Amino acid sequence: MPTTPDGKPLVFNLFNNGTGHHEASWRLAGSRPLANLDIEYFERLAQLAESVMFDSVFLADHVALEGVSRRPSGRLDPLTVLTAVARATSRIGLIATASTSYNDPFNVARRFASLDLISGGRVGWNIVTTPGDASARNFGLDAQASHLERYQRAEEFLAVTQKLWDSWEDDAVVADREAGVWADESKIHAIDHRGRFFSVRGPLNTPRSPQGHPVLVQAGSSEDGKDFAARHAEAVFTAQHTLADGKAFYADLKRRVKLAGRDPEGVKILPGIVPVLGSTEAQARELDAELDELVLAESGRDRLARQLGLDPARLPLDRQLPDDLPTEDDIEGDKSRFTLIVELARREKLTVRQLVGRLGSGRGHRTFAGTPEQVADTIQAWAREGAADGFNIMPAILPSGFELFVEHVVPILRKRGLIRSDYEGTTLREHYGLPRPPSRYATPSGASAGDAGSGSE
Amino acid sequence: MPTTPDGKPLVFNLFNNGTGHHEASWRLAGSRPLANLDIEYFERLAQLAESVMFDSVFLADHVALEGVSRRPSGRLDPLTVLTAVARATSRIGLIATASTSYNDPFNVARRFASLDLISGGRVGWNIVTTPGDASARNFGLDAQASHLERYQRAEEFLAVTQKLWDSWEDDAVVADREAGVWADESKIHAIDHRGRFFSVRGPLNTPRSPQGHPVLVQAGSSEDGKDFAARHAEAVFTAQHTLADGKAFYADLKRRVKLAGRDPEGVKILPGIVPVLGSTEAQARELDAELDELVLAESGRDRLARQLGLDPARLPLDRQLPDDLPTEDDIEGDKSRFTLIVELARREKLTVRQLVGRLGSGRGHRTFAGTPEQVADTIQAWAREGAADGFNIMPAILPSGFELFVEHVVPILRKRGLIRSDYEGTTLREHYGLPRPPSRYATPSGASAGDAGSGSE
Repeated sequence: MPTTPDGKPLVFNLFNNGTGHHEASWRLAGSRPLANLDIEYFERLAQLAESVMFDSVFLADHVALEGVSRRPSGRLDPLTVLTAVARATSRIGLIATASTSYNDPFNVARRFASLDLISGGRVGWNIVTTPGDASARNFGLDAQASHLERYQRAEEFLAVTQKLWDSWEDDAVVADREAGVWADESKIHAIDHRGRFFSVRGPLNTPRSPQGHPVLVQAGSSEDGKDFAARHAEAVFTAQHTLADGKAFYADLKRRVKLAGRDPEGVKILPGIVPVLGSTEAQARELDAELDELVLAESGRDRLARQLGLDPARLPLDRQLPDDLPTEDDIEGDKSRFTLIVELARREKLTVRQLVGRLGSGRGHRTFAGTPEQVADTIQAWAREGAADGFNIMPAILPSGFELFVEHVVPILRKRGLIRSDYEGTTLREHYGLPRPPSRYATPSGASAGDAGSGSE
Repeated sequence: MPTTPDGKPLVFNLFNNGTGHHEASWRLAGSRPLANLDIEYFERLAQLAESVMFDSVFLADHVALEGVSRRPSGRLDPLTVLTAVARATSRIGLIATASTSYNDPFNVARRFASLDLISGGRVGWNIVTTPGDASARNFGLDAQASHLERYQRAEEFLAVTQKLWDSWEDDAVVADREAGVWADESKIHAIDHRGRFFSVRGPLNTPRSPQGHPVLVQAGSSEDGKDFAARHAEAVFTAQHTLADGKAFYADLKRRVKLAGRDPEGVKILPGIVPVLGSTEAQARELDAELDELVLAESGRDRLARQLGLDPARLPLDRQLPDDLPTEDDIEGDKSRFTLIVELARREKLTVRQLVGRLGSGRGHRTFAGTPEQVADTIQAWAREGAADGFNIMPAILPSGFELFVEHVVPILRKRGLIRSDYEGTTLREHYGLPRPPSRYATPSGASAGDAGSGSE
């Protein structure tokens, strides 16, 4: 097979989800059910991904505990984990989830800047608005804000963090011992932000980090989410089940990016793939089926009910979804996950039991059971057909699923020129091929002093 | 000299403040003016402290930038730094400052629990209410809340974090693959906190950490601060300039602890000492004077004016402080620092210029210039006389001042039995000799189910 049209390697991200992306992965013999709490485990998996030149590792997050009894649920703070991982690796990018609904922009800007400094410019921020009332109730609210309001807050939250990251120009620190001048105050700027959600004077109390801004990642596929991504994201994680859907999403998002006045090349679209590997296709499918059987139907049904906004009693296990479901418009939680689940169930006419098994498998993402050659083929096909700039690799079982991927899939990808054979840069921006943003306050950059001084939204 | 009366080693904490505690330390030839941003520097100093069995290292924090031009000011987030340090060390305790005024309790509880898990139980939290309008303006306020209100918020903030740390019982995670039961939900508790400042449902989404609760540290010496310490602190950092003052503070605080119904042994009082070491006393004093001369009088005066709540124009450099100063009651910022500065100036009849030099030296703490033998003597004297359970070692110059301390002072302390010769435990609680708190929700612990279930303040 030929390499991709432009001959450039694809982006590869490892989604480390503890024992694996399949909900039942922790129930297999030999699993590590405490993986989520084991810092050495995170370090070793990142080192393995770095050994084959992956671009990045990614950690998801929640700020509430749900369904804890049935699967590994307690988790460490992702930025804390990735700080340890940063010191155990030297090149691979580190993407952490942080919520715009339940943080202050000053704290988030500072934590990401700190890790970007510590890691030599390898940090990305997966921006989430955090659906769900359970999270809201841990932060002083009785229920979550509406989907629209959460995105409005996210918009302003991001604007504030970007101003804070710009508040020190690159050459603000002079460290002149003789003169007793540590920093040039004319290059450190108050941001004087006053908006609907936030008032932040600034400057940040951490100097500008190697990447200027951490790489901005986004994963919501609702209309609000896609528009937010079009305006701001530099990488997009997305759940697409068919090549046709993947191509449509890719074309739609790149079009929105262009409409937003940005370079479509500056946004990397990374569909999730949950590889289940076997030496033969039959063996892979058998493993997949074994995992699906380990999913506990009742607890999966309870989660499904939450996602669909229904009483669990309305979902008998051996019937299909009821006809009178709410629409995406009624959902204030994760709109895109709602639609994806409903479309999957309707398209394949799945019973609730079957649907729960399928969702346990990919948790909404695309499971692909096959041989290493078949996995490499589908990766190549999606890239060639215009459905992906790279992939979010979410092994069903960890670490073994990723060890198999490294051993058997990566050599095929490398032979086809689909994955880099060495890091060319040192920062995540360089790995992803993204420009480094200048400080808006830097006078020689073209921004007029008047623009730079105005901090209000 | 004999060892301390009870023959137990003292507590030793290293305060790593970048280039050193003296404000002018960064201006010395050979200094590392970017030390505050250099993660390897933090790791190496902690390793050095661990090599001589120090109990802990400590990082201060601010959430605003002031006086940036004249001294190293940009700093990394302390918990981020200590996560890296945790992975570069194995025994030493790690104490990070975090503000109760500008954080959410859920996030703080989770970050400390995460680092406690990662470090094997070595974390302490220096609880600060963060004085100053500059910080408030980075978090949506036009001015800081009153001193009293900040402490009221701190009280409730701490109560919420402690409930969250208790929300998982120690044996909540069962990880039974066969049965498909990861956790025993009857051992994971909502906290249902509803108070004046916070509503938090819980539980935390991170399991209970090795120490149960991180060690609680406090440093304010105002009346509100001392009462807060008496109720909650397990270690207290304090600035005391004379042995008489140190004894009075020690006796007063231990008395308050007893009045609060706690064991005075459960609160370790650690005065700060800023050692300036020389082979002879004269050499040490010379180095101290050299440092004081490097302090830039005007910028020091500006900071002094902020601390005293005055216009800088009211502080001519070669006059003493004006007679008509505000009183501690008028100060909404750092009350205890205000009083300490005014008393020092009045007691020694210092001009503003001299005062600025002295404050640059210790930044309010006690500078002690002398030989290694003299430093060991004063440490021993304060402990024997009932002014200290240990010391917060704040070298005027880093790393050299601490290297000299390790090489020349520690062997004397060890010979006198004042510092341990090996770690006996693995957690910070064990190093400090503090009990591990049980979860309030654990039924066999003696707390009645009725008490455990009630989460309201």
